[in-house]
Amino acid sequence: MSRTVTIAAAQLGPIRRAENRASVVKRLIALMREARSMGADVVAYPEAALTAFFPHWWTEDEAEVDAWFEREMPGADTLPLFDEARRLGIGFHLGYCELDQSAGRKRRFNSAVLVGSDGAIIGKYRKIHLPGHAEHRPETPFQNLEKRYFEVGDLGFGAWRAYGGVAGMMICNDWRWPEAYRVLGLQGVEMVFCGYNTPVHHPAAPDHDRLGQFHNELCMQSGAYQNSTWVIGVAKAGVEEGVDMIGGSAIIAPTGEIVARCSSNDDELIVARCDLDLGRSYRETTFDFAKHRRVEHYRMIVERTGAIEPADEAPVRRKQGAR
Amino acid sequence: MSRTVTIAAAQLGPIRRAENRASVVKRLIALMREARSMGADVVAYPEAALTAFFPHWWTEDEAEVDAWFEREMPGADTLPLFDEARRLGIGFHLGYCELDQSAGRKRRFNSAVLVGSDGAIIGKYRKIHLPGHAEHRPETPFQNLEKRYFEVGDLGFGAWRAYGGVAGMMICNDWRWPEAYRVLGLQGVEMVFCGYNTPVHHPAAPDHDRLGQFHNELCMQSGAYQNSTWVIGVAKAGVEEGVDMIGGSAIIAPTGEIVARCSSNDDELIVARCDLDLGRSYRETTFDFAKHRRVEHYRMIVERTGAIEPADEAPVRRKQGAR
Repeated sequence: MSRTVTIAAAQLGPIRRAENRASVVKRLIALMREARSMGADVVAYPEAALTAFFPHWWTEDEAEVDAWFEREMPGADTLPLFDEARRLGIGFHLGYCELDQSAGRKRRFNSAVLVGSDGAIIGKYRKIHLPGHAEHRPETPFQNLEKRYFEVGDLGFGAWRAYGGVAGMMICNDWRWPEAYRVLGLQGVEMVFCGYNTPVHHPAAPDHDRLGQFHNELCMQSGAYQNSTWVIGVAKAGVEEGVDMIGGSAIIAPTGEIVARCSSNDDELIVARCDLDLGRSYRETTFDFAKHRRVEHYRMIVERTGAIEPADEAPVRRKQGAR
Repeated sequence: MSRTVTIAAAQLGPIRRAENRASVVKRLIALMREARSMGADVVAYPEAALTAFFPHWWTEDEAEVDAWFEREMPGADTLPLFDEARRLGIGFHLGYCELDQSAGRKRRFNSAVLVGSDGAIIGKYRKIHLPGHAEHRPETPFQNLEKRYFEVGDLGFGAWRAYGGVAGMMICNDWRWPEAYRVLGLQGVEMVFCGYNTPVHHPAAPDHDRLGQFHNELCMQSGAYQNSTWVIGVAKAGVEEGVDMIGGSAIIAPTGEIVARCSSNDDELIVARCDLDLGRSYRETTFDFAKHRRVEHYRMIVERTGAIEPADEAPVRRKQGAR
């Protein structure tokens, strides 16, 4: 059996606040058809791909918040996407905001699913690394209220057999955290799907703004290489309701090399033929985890959340002065 | 107090097998003087900087192996380097092979030290991620016998107050492993010193050869950015006894950007003025570990050494076929 999977990344341009899901799903279906016509086995959409990215706005109106969330997947608005996938025989990855009431209370997550070419959901992920803040910051040009509107994901970083290999997911800010890639790598992941909505501007540190795209690529490329996996990064890009977001959706090989990259900030499709066996030559040599990892020296990674600096003097014999 | 430290990386060209330590130390001292004349507060030398990199050769002669190791630091051959540092008032980082008999038996480590401008040793590190193999592979053009000649380091990834900030060390192959940077990052490290001897050719996977320098930079840059630290990577470069090694010694900012890089494969000095506070804007925002890390989802990193793939079918509803 060939282990080559043809993967498409369907970047989205901005979604207007007033644009309804039916309209967005039409855009998704258009990209899905284009992907299938180019031979794709699976097409990946961004984080929260069904609406504008509402964590950029403050509201205290619960009903207004809830209106951005899906109560079922597929629901009435998204069923046409699942139907079209089944009709075309193509899998997909979709980020959306999930309202879950199964635990006897309302819980909101920033979620994503892997869907097979039969339209069945293979796996679900709920975002773990929520960026931003929970309090209103009216002095900044936009908010980043993921810590207010979402709970931290409770499903871990899962991996599933899908699309002829092993697939996992992360969402947006997860891409900065090597722990996320590593937990997936320790499950032998061969394809990591990662949608994102990443503003260009960092209100808390505007000197980082010039580096957004560079950091995005640096983390996804190193995560791919260090875990011998393909990474599919898919952006919602461009200026959405006044918030400028990076694009640069990319498909990255287990070599760490970018093999396809979007060149616009709009709806745009990129496609790559991904040899899942390419990761094997890394996984079995340089990154043979069983042979080379020394977990006895990694315990601080789970035993300490924040950084703790060494004590002031010991074991320094004499304090060094910098000039 | 200014938090700017001027750091020099002293790349070495090849060391001949027959070259003695006295001759090498002369090269190190010449680079140290040059560094000091350019205002450096500290100069960093490569891994195993005192001799040719002998793990490239097989031998069963214990005495021959031991001859590559230092029994004390400083010893007779290296004392002139410590003396010169004290005279110039410059700190240094030195990689060397350490023979330790303190535990009542002979132990060999691939080690490095941080030395203050007073010539006192501030901290020691023993390499944890030993690459290569323990058995003779006569069919390959050279050996990579670190797993034969060294024990795995037993000191962990330490951090010390040095040079006006917090400094840590890793050695060569450690630079590929995000766990190494993270354990240092969790100690608030601001300067990571990393010497290396990295062959261009991977006998087990020659298709990786074209990417050696790229992987080196990718891992050091992402490690710097993801841990808000300066990284000083220092190579032994060039063709040493028939083994071609990458150069590209670099000083990398907490932004992930390379701010200085060697352009030869020979003895070469690069210098950068490193603002230790540059990392603060990352450490206090995007990478505020206490606020954003979710250690409850990282446990697999320490509970599992090798990768384990998900079970064949569950939780996949129906197996997906790749074309």
